[in-house]
Amino acid sequence: MESYPFLKAEFERCRQLIAPYIHRTPVLRSTRIDELTQAKVYFKCENFQRAGSYKLRGATNALLRLQENQTVPAVVTHSSGNFAQALSLAAQSLNIPAHIVMPSNAPEVKKQGVRAYSGQIFESKPTLEDREKQAERITSESNGVFIHPSNDPMVMLGQGTACAELLEDVPQLDKVVVPVGGGGLLGGTALAAYFSGLRCEPVGAEPMAADDAYRSLKSGKIEGNESTNTVADGLRTVLGSYTFPVIYEHVKEIVRVEETEIIQAMRLIWERMKIVVEPSSAVALAAVLREPEQFKGKSIGIVISGGNVDLCNLPFS
Amino acid sequence: MESYPFLKAEFERCRQLIAPYIHRTPVLRSTRIDELTQAKVYFKCENFQRAGSYKLRGATNALLRLQENQTVPAVVTHSSGNFAQALSLAAQSLNIPAHIVMPSNAPEVKKQGVRAYSGQIFESKPTLEDREKQAERITSESNGVFIHPSNDPMVMLGQGTACAELLEDVPQLDKVVVPVGGGGLLGGTALAAYFSGLRCEPVGAEPMAADDAYRSLKSGKIEGNESTNTVADGLRTVLGSYTFPVIYEHVKEIVRVEETEIIQAMRLIWERMKIVVEPSSAVALAAVLREPEQFKGKSIGIVISGGNVDLCNLPFS
Repeated sequence: MESYPFLKAEFERCRQLIAPYIHRTPVLRSTRIDELTQAKVYFKCENFQRAGSYKLRGATNALLRLQENQTVPAVVTHSSGNFAQALSLAAQSLNIPAHIVMPSNAPEVKKQGVRAYSGQIFESKPTLEDREKQAERITSESNGVFIHPSNDPMVMLGQGTACAELLEDVPQLDKVVVPVGGGGLLGGTALAAYFSGLRCEPVGAEPMAADDAYRSLKSGKIEGNESTNTVADGLRTVLGSYTFPVIYEHVKEIVRVEETEIIQAMRLIWERMKIVVEPSSAVALAAVLREPEQFKGKSIGIVISGGNVDLCNLPFS
Repeated sequence: MESYPFLKAEFERCRQLIAPYIHRTPVLRSTRIDELTQAKVYFKCENFQRAGSYKLRGATNALLRLQENQTVPAVVTHSSGNFAQALSLAAQSLNIPAHIVMPSNAPEVKKQGVRAYSGQIFESKPTLEDREKQAERITSESNGVFIHPSNDPMVMLGQGTACAELLEDVPQLDKVVVPVGGGGLLGGTALAAYFSGLRCEPVGAEPMAADDAYRSLKSGKIEGNESTNTVADGLRTVLGSYTFPVIYEHVKEIVRVEETEIIQAMRLIWERMKIVVEPSSAVALAAVLREPEQFKGKSIGIVISGGNVDLCNLPFS
């Protein structure tokens, strides 16, 4: 990509700009998980981030950059997940109204999260078509700006700052493993590792049941998912025009995992580390446990992407 | 108590002795919980302690002190809770066999915890009488030493080290609130606050459904519980001959809370702080939320006592 020197400067700027709005999250370890993986595993705990996920980083960067060039009467997104809460909080911090399009069947707990950060909810039918149509209409009516949850360069750079902090704390990492859905986190992580000048290799982790990124990397073009029947609700989306090229250039490997492996890894984190993480976050540890030979003896970073779960609907049995 | 100068020296020794065997756990905060309580709340996270609770501190101190004066062929306790795991781990670290008497109806997850730390389980009938009888028999047969989960001076001093660490990190605390069951944690905390020379006042927190400590403080003698129907499974025990006098002298107040308040506080901690805590731990926050006038505007320490829960049997609905 010919724009890398430019992007690297943008990334440095992003880190400075968003710092007052985000927590520098801690890096945790677990003796038991080190034993099981025979590796040194460092967990960057974005479940402790404000609004409960790394998504606040990208949302904040996108908003701050928008504000530099224009007045922003409102921001709009469509999301039933963590980006909805993150954008609401980022907008609230900057006194911008946030309009969030959510499907009519979105869980009440997610709606409460958006409302807690003063986001205004607009209902759509539970189809991608209607979500996009409603978002377009509301963007136009509010004279607002639409921000995509993952396929936006400023969002992607923001998400990469979690890895940059992790590499400051643990520069000796051999690999950093992150879950991949829309590719904002994986793309940003790959750029952060590249810009760091260190030898840390980015690895994606994806549910077998929504393995579009794995197939996209093989085919060299953006692939879709025929179905997305996975417990990792944050990873049902597909790569986009901004995230795919970065991932295609910088990521050599995506490890796919089974649903039972995701739930087992999630349980291991809850029981041993005593932290609340969502299923999407557990996909990265599941990948490390699935391929012991690849990770054995190495220093491995894992970005725990978030901790927003419905406590009345957990996948343990 | 005429022995305080002696006890203070013992406490300092305890801190040094156990340091290599325990984690110095972090102190966490929550913006949302500060808003709700209108106080500054500092959570000492013993759910991140080895074996998942503060109990490792007292178990380790008791074992190390025993070893100074005699060879210890085995240690014995009866417990179906956190002390069983803690003593097993402490004994494993010191290469001493641990024999744990557990009632036949103890949950499998608790038994697994003990076995994971090489503790040997002996079944008793699910009555206190048979537990004590079996423990006595096994102590005699193994030529071992019985250690009580709470009513032991060295156990109590060990439990107080969590508060000592908290006061080093946050010396401006006005109050420190801890749950009370057998009184090891509350007694140790009261002593730690007293020995610190700071103005921090210890407060107990107890389920209404097992309020023996509250009534004991009123009557001036150890009271029992007619029933102990509380979700806070760690707090069903009663004060003992060592813990009661310390608590009676140093603790002015025990706040009692309802079952629904315990579950609400537990949910708040899980959802907002993204950490796994057991119901007994939530009792302390429930007390702060129940009596806002007492805690408003103050700096409050809370010892999160543990995080050992059965993920398939959570009290959320």
